[in-house]
Amino acid sequence: MQQAHALTIDARRRLRPAGIAFGGDYNPEQWPEEVWAEDVALMKEAGVSLVTAGIFSWAKVEPRPGEFDFAWFDRVMDNLAAAGVAVCLATMTASPPPWLSRLHPHILPETADGRRMWPGGRQHYCPSSGVYRSHATRLVERLASRYADHPALEMWHIGNEYGCHTPMCWCDESAADFRRWLSDRYGAVEALNDAWSTAFWAQGYDSFDVPVTTNFIGVHKPVDAFRWAAHEDVVSVDVYQDPHDQDTHIAAGFIFDVARSARGGQPWMLMEQAPSAVNWRDRNGPKPPGRMRLWSWQAVAQGADAVLYFQWRQSRGGAEKYHSAMLPHGGTGTRTFREVAELGRELASVPQIAGTRCTADVALVLDWNSWWALELDSHPSTALNQMEIALAHYRPLFEAGITCDVVPPDRDLSGYRLVVVPNLYLLRERDADRLTAFVRGGGHLLVSFFSGIVDDCDRVHLGGYPAPLREVLGLHVEEFWPLPEQETVNVRHQDGAVSPADLWSEVVVPEGARTVATFDSGPLAGQPAVTRNSFGEGSAWYVATRLSPQAMRALTDEVCRTAEAGPVLPGLPGQVQATVREGDGGRFVLLLNHGREEVEVGLAEPMTDALAQGSAPSDRITLPGAGVAVLSKP
Amino acid sequence: MQQAHALTIDARRRLRPAGIAFGGDYNPEQWPEEVWAEDVALMKEAGVSLVTAGIFSWAKVEPRPGEFDFAWFDRVMDNLAAAGVAVCLATMTASPPPWLSRLHPHILPETADGRRMWPGGRQHYCPSSGVYRSHATRLVERLASRYADHPALEMWHIGNEYGCHTPMCWCDESAADFRRWLSDRYGAVEALNDAWSTAFWAQGYDSFDVPVTTNFIGVHKPVDAFRWAAHEDVVSVDVYQDPHDQDTHIAAGFIFDVARSARGGQPWMLMEQAPSAVNWRDRNGPKPPGRMRLWSWQAVAQGADAVLYFQWRQSRGGAEKYHSAMLPHGGTGTRTFREVAELGRELASVPQIAGTRCTADVALVLDWNSWWALELDSHPSTALNQMEIALAHYRPLFEAGITCDVVPPDRDLSGYRLVVVPNLYLLRERDADRLTAFVRGGGHLLVSFFSGIVDDCDRVHLGGYPAPLREVLGLHVEEFWPLPEQETVNVRHQDGAVSPADLWSEVVVPEGARTVATFDSGPLAGQPAVTRNSFGEGSAWYVATRLSPQAMRALTDEVCRTAEAGPVLPGLPGQVQATVREGDGGRFVLLLNHGREEVEVGLAEPMTDALAQGSAPSDRITLPGAGVAVLSKP
Amino acid sequence: MQQAHALTIDARRRLRPAGIAFGGDYNPEQWPEEVWAEDVALMKEAGVSLVTAGIFSWAKVEPRPGEFDFAWFDRVMDNLAAAGVAVCLATMTASPPPWLSRLHPHILPETADGRRMWPGGRQHYCPSSGVYRSHATRLVERLASRYADHPALEMWHIGNEYGCHTPMCWCDESAADFRRWLSDRYGAVEALNDAWSTAFWAQGYDSFDVPVTTNFIGVHKPVDAFRWAAHEDVVSVDVYQDPHDQDTHIAAGFIFDVARSARGGQPWMLMEQAPSAVNWRDRNGPKPPGRMRLWSWQAVAQGADAVLYFQWRQSRGGAEKYHSAMLPHGGTGTRTFREVAELGRELASVPQIAGTRCTADVALVLDWNSWWALELDSHPSTALNQMEIALAHYRPLFEAGITCDVVPPDRDLSGYRLVVVPNLYLLRERDADRLTAFVRGGGHLLVSFFSGIVDDCDRVHLGGYPAPLREVLGLHVEEFWPLPEQETVNVRHQDGAVSPADLWSEVVVPEGARTVATFDSGPLAGQPAVTRNSFGEGSAWYVATRLSPQAMRALTDEVCRTAEAGPVLPGLPGQVQATVREGDGGRFVLLLNHGREEVEVGLAEPMTDALAQGSAPSDRITLPGAGVAVLSKP
Repeated sequence: MQQAHALTIDARRRLRPAGIAFGGDYNPEQWPEEVWAEDVALMKEAGVSLVTAGIFSWAKVEPRPGEFDFAWFDRVMDNLAAAGVAVCLATMTASPPPWLSRLHPHILPETADGRRMWPGGRQHYCPSSGVYRSHATRLVERLASRYADHPALEMWHIGNEYGCHTPMCWCDESAADFRRWLSDRYGAVEALNDAWSTAFWAQGYDSFDVPVTTNFIGVHKPVDAFRWAAHEDVVSVDVYQDPHDQDTHIAAGFIFDVARSARGGQPWMLMEQAPSAVNWRDRNGPKPPGRMRLWSWQAVAQGADAVLYFQWRQSRGGAEKYHSAMLPHGGTGTRTFREVAELGRELASVPQIAGTRCTADVALVLDWNSWWALELDSHPSTALNQMEIALAHYRPLFEAGITCDVVPPDRDLSGYRLVVVPNLYLLRERDADRLTAFVRGGGHLLVSFFSGIVDDCDRVHLGGYPAPLREVLGLHVEEFWPLPEQETVNVRHQDGAVSPADLWSEVVVPEGARTVATFDSGPLAGQPAVTRNSFGEGSAWYVATRLSPQAMRALTDEVCRTAEAGPVLPGLPGQVQATVREGDGGRFVLLLNHGREEVEVGLAEPMTDALAQGSAPSDRITLPGAGVAVLSKP
Repeated sequence: MQQAHALTIDARRRLRPAGIAFGGDYNPEQWPEEVWAEDVALMKEAGVSLVTAGIFSWAKVEPRPGEFDFAWFDRVMDNLAAAGVAVCLATMTASPPPWLSRLHPHILPETADGRRMWPGGRQHYCPSSGVYRSHATRLVERLASRYADHPALEMWHIGNEYGCHTPMCWCDESAADFRRWLSDRYGAVEALNDAWSTAFWAQGYDSFDVPVTTNFIGVHKPVDAFRWAAHEDVVSVDVYQDPHDQDTHIAAGFIFDVARSARGGQPWMLMEQAPSAVNWRDRNGPKPPGRMRLWSWQAVAQGADAVLYFQWRQSRGGAEKYHSAMLPHGGTGTRTFREVAELGRELASVPQIAGTRCTADVALVLDWNSWWALELDSHPSTALNQMEIALAHYRPLFEAGITCDVVPPDRDLSGYRLVVVPNLYLLRERDADRLTAFVRGGGHLLVSFFSGIVDDCDRVHLGGYPAPLREVLGLHVEEFWPLPEQETVNVRHQDGAVSPADLWSEVVVPEGARTVATFDSGPLAGQPAVTRNSFGEGSAWYVATRLSPQAMRALTDEVCRTAEAGPVLPGLPGQVQATVREGDGGRFVLLLNHGREEVEVGLAEPMTDALAQGSAPSDRITLPGAGVAVLSKP
Repeated sequence: MQQAHALTIDARRRLRPAGIAFGGDYNPEQWPEEVWAEDVALMKEAGVSLVTAGIFSWAKVEPRPGEFDFAWFDRVMDNLAAAGVAVCLATMTASPPPWLSRLHPHILPETADGRRMWPGGRQHYCPSSGVYRSHATRLVERLASRYADHPALEMWHIGNEYGCHTPMCWCDESAADFRRWLSDRYGAVEALNDAWSTAFWAQGYDSFDVPVTTNFIGVHKPVDAFRWAAHEDVVSVDVYQDPHDQDTHIAAGFIFDVARSARGGQPWMLMEQAPSAVNWRDRNGPKPPGRMRLWSWQAVAQGADAVLYFQWRQSRGGAEKYHSAMLPHGGTGTRTFREVAELGRELASVPQIAGTRCTADVALVLDWNSWWALELDSHPSTALNQMEIALAHYRPLFEAGITCDVVPPDRDLSGYRLVVVPNLYLLRERDADRLTAFVRGGGHLLVSFFSGIVDDCDRVHLGGYPAPLREVLGLHVEEFWPLPEQETVNVRHQDGAVSPADLWSEVVVPEGARTVATFDSGPLAGQPAVTRNSFGEGSAWYVATRLSPQAMRALTDEVCRTAEAGPVLPGLPGQVQATVREGDGGRFVLLLNHGREEVEVGLAEPMTDALAQGSAPSDRITLPGAGVAVLSKP
């Protein structure tokens, strides 16, 4: 029995989620118009409620400079509207048409060594190009005028995977732009105005009064998601789990938490995922049975209100013909299509979860400025990797079932019990002061090595490393002592356990902090490896090396106990994730079994699983491998 | 006792092989004229009957633009004629002189990122350059007029290792040429004629009515040997075995079979091999005693009528001074010279083998178009390698002693019992129809995974993978399931044996085919790994993964039994190769021991070994390590 | 108690070492002038007697073209003079100011593929640029006029780590210069004069009559230290040991011996070392306690008269902020500053050692021309590495405690007992004659494989490899037989011991030489691996493969016994280095314990340790791990 996705569009045309949106990229221009009717019929069969359209359509709506042909796209929009499928309409500016780069080769990006790139890929334009901008603006004005009142229009998609193919351009025009930006930032004599991108975001689109988004590529070094999110109405993100990586759900979980935290917990959109295999890794495994469903529900469990795919119908030719799609080469008789349609029905069956939110007692601090500075060269060790260290802190929280926000260092911390600061190399004094005040007021803080070293001009904070955190941590660091590749040192913990550590060590000189673990071998044997400082009403912990995953888990558990930051459900079996979403729609406990074996989960009180139709309330839930439950009180 | 090579040149000056040609590249311009007399004297001592000359002589015959100096080359030709050494005369166009690139820098090739290359290497010209072509044409006309009737002239060498140093050029002139080619191929509005290269091959040289060849570099991805061979009178190939690789004779055997098959079994020329070490690998081992002889006879065993070397006299300076030569730095007292001269005598002692041919019951399909398409990116796995998979199918045939042709997919298959199709990703419908008809008529077919997927525009054949082979194979493939690096899955065979497989797997849905091996572990456990389909009068086998070498050998043996395709000699010891050459000169069984230990080979009837002078006929032949026998009925 | 460094400057202003100079790079332009007074006060506390100044000061003394501002630098010089700190004054030409490359972009170097580099690094100029040269000359004239008579001026520093950042430039101006150089060298028709650099060295600076030096970067392939040293008054070198490499003192020892030998044993300067960690390796370990002292004394033990550092005060920002300095970010309370100041006191306590010299019975031959030729491609093996093979010969000498000079092949060898020739691929006949004469006269010679193969035009010496050494070695080599990667062969020695060898083997045909070790496995089993030839009054040994370190040690020991070349102290414990410096100041035995454990060293007679104040003479010295003793007769 099929359940339709409910869509409500109010008078002001704001997105009113009446359930979890479900759908994918729809690129009808790849196919003859004869198949379009089948497309919308099968979309209904699959429970699709929202598609993204128009991302790569520029060349087809403007086949020659200034000659627009919207008739075919009108039919696409009309078909979708008639079928009750809403549209996230792209501005079509992500891939300029061939004639534009042929007429104006200087819109093509230039590499760092001065080579002009060729068209034929994607995002083949210099973001600073005035010619590109004027053509893009003209197109966008036409699109906006034409479709602003179209009944299918749900939201605007104003950039596709920004920074994926062309993160930077080194052309003269970019250089000029960059100089203007420098002038703005540093107050040079001539006040040149480089306000285009902010003006574009702040004024251009908000006037249309519909939601605006751009899909991030996971957590992507070139694009500061926190700063961009401030200019969006809704955060959206693309996540492509690697089925060959058995921890891929943890890395994806981190991205989901960033997406949720980027606008303070507001529901977000999973804008692209693969129904099964991708085509751009070296070896592209399909998602085994049940995993696509599990990972889609994981996004919902971590706060998503939309589950979309790239793309609707698998291409027959071209670069992405081996990227899986909702409707594969093999048609509706395939496992992939069956799993997609089944998930559509499931999501439609619990519309009330949409709009509810997750809350967290723990925040993990991530800062793009620090990331960029950390990974420059000429450092004590070039082996430090921001994402590795962030995930080393994130993993034990995830495995312990503790919900965690990921926030920038200038975020208000007052709602948290624990703040985790992985390797925050660059730290402004005012942000350090905020951390200090947080602990003084009763918060708990866990900081790892090589944090608080430089200011936002990458100049060392003098006064003993890490000067701005010295007071709250109760220590200073006299010498950095990075470890050779392949070399480990032992760390002895308070309970006598000894674990290996690697990558980094430091000479820590306590100034009030208590040593809770010491180096037990190597050049720093006998010196502090982990310290704890009681400060104000709270406590501040410092980790001077890279602990083993086991030791990191034990330390995190101890810090969480101190901070009284607990899991959603105590005593969960390994590999089972639990989250809570709560709001006007009710309170839902989502259980996800990332393992392959069946497990049983005990609950504090009897609950009902919305995905198991007609099941009786129970305080014990059985989940098969890759199983999912959406629980609520009866 | 020395035996001279017999040379017969008929009135039409066609090559009339009166025995296996023997010799090498002769570059007298590297040496003062005083040594030239010694050269021809020692050539006679070594039994040389054919040399290639003039490959790098352009700069010396045309020292300044339009000023030709052929006097010195006349003396070279005259010396050789007087000594009874025939000449394969190069057009001298492989390496333009410095003045040409200095006067016309635009003849130099351009790299993909727009950098103009410098002269100083080899093949430093853009193949599309009109300036290069006009200078080359002028030189060739002069050469042809001057030497067409010279008594030493045996054949023309019209390109040296084409595509070795400059497989592609990205300059504007090449781009224009490429656009013309596209226009020709796809019928664009303006019919521009890009016929130069075909005109060149078809008209220019054939008028001189002597054999024309160009030496291929093994089986080389940039150059489609099958298409080029159609324009040659004789196929020639360079093979540089790696003495550090103990399977180098199998890889060489594959190249030899391609060379023989390229013109339908016609005798071919081994135009270059090293007398001992080369100089261009990282570590260049010499050929151990006896191996150069063995590998030269292997070429003859697989159909060659010429055994030539690079080069005659080892250079004293320059880039190739550590490349071994027939006459080493150390002179005639060296092992290398002794082995060369001894082989020359041996080859001259069996002139009647020249002109005989090998025949095969088995054909292995290789297609350059498919090779190019297979190894593009954005595929389910980029780890697929055409040559690896072709050799994985070739090796068990070689080891089983089964003679095998290597043919393009549009070749007439009616003479074969078995056709092996390794990973033929791109397959035209008409070629698939030919394979289907072959099986229907009683042939047997062995196809491996990811074959028949796209058409010649690299667009997926719709209708279920592999659509054009679906009927003959009796199955379709629902999902590709490439395996992670380092990961293996088990395959259980009909006899209960279990073997590992890796690289690739697929979800095979039988539609009439019988499963003869199943996946026994991993995500596809229980599903078909190898199938067999009875179809018409024949059978079609399909392999959905990369089997282990042992399992591939067992499968190949079984398929060969079904097809009644047997070895030349049954029950051969391991490492012993046997082939048959037959024709007007008689019927010869060649035995080659690629191992290091002595072996004994039993024959069905007593035979005489032409290389063991005066030996009595016997039905048992003893071969030492690296030993060779050329057997015929007494 | 602190002991000041004594400085004596004579009327002609020649450096008169009154002790081991101690100090480092001083870059006051990085800091506000307020800290300069503290700098000189702390320099006095640390015992600093010599600093290098001005290396990167061009932009500050000439802020705009032709506008010079020396006032601030006058104050730097005056401050140092007042504090009794001498200055090694840089010509300031190592890093041109931004305005120079902005006005004249063509002074920037060009890469091999034609890309003009950007400013912002170091050494960003084409060494052939006339514009750069004219600006550099103008600056140098100003500097010389202004500071020639300044009391702080001790010596001139005329190039910083030449060839480190810009070893080559491929611009048109360099090409023209190179053509001139070729014309000079090979006597082309037009005699163009490319004498600038020799004129510069020979005339420009010597007229100021103070010592001139430039600091080499260790033993650096692009810069022939022997040829440059001939134009210097004092050799100086930068050595950055890697604390993660436990053999770093042996590699440093080799560099020290090159520095000492480059001007025939004259005392040299360690111009740069790191007080602790560097910042430019991937993982930069600090020097553990005591190692900086040990390695500084090692330089003195091998003939240095100066121990300097990069740099005085650790940068707060910029590329080198994590490079350790004498005065770290953490100030005077740090281990690094304490160790620096303590070493300053120690060095000042034995001023009489300065000016004394080491002498050696053994010379190891190193030739940059041969190095360059050896590592070209198209060789029998590209795995040959000049430094690896040189160090394989150097290590057993170092470990045996035998002092060794490192000399070019045209050096007078008459003072040595043993000459070691590691892999001298390129060898002029006259230098081979010198080696032959050396043995004929009673010297002993040890030569390793692939030596004496080509002349100085990289053309093979005909007449059997290695023709020019064939007589003295009593053998010829018929074939090179390089070994595959990872493969070893066994070598059986005279005493029956069997050891592995790798990389290379050869077919050696003795012609008088006696075989002292044979290959015992592999393709050359039974043939000579090591030979010895009695020749004239001496002997010549030849090694035809790369022996294991153990076998190399045993062979070296045997050759040294034959040559009667012995260690400074017999029977030293492992890891203890001993050297002798002798001269007007007395005779000193320096003992250095490179191990971590305490050792006891026996002496032939009672001696006093100058570093252990007030200790009684003893014939047994106890050295802790990393310990140092400076012994002399009481």
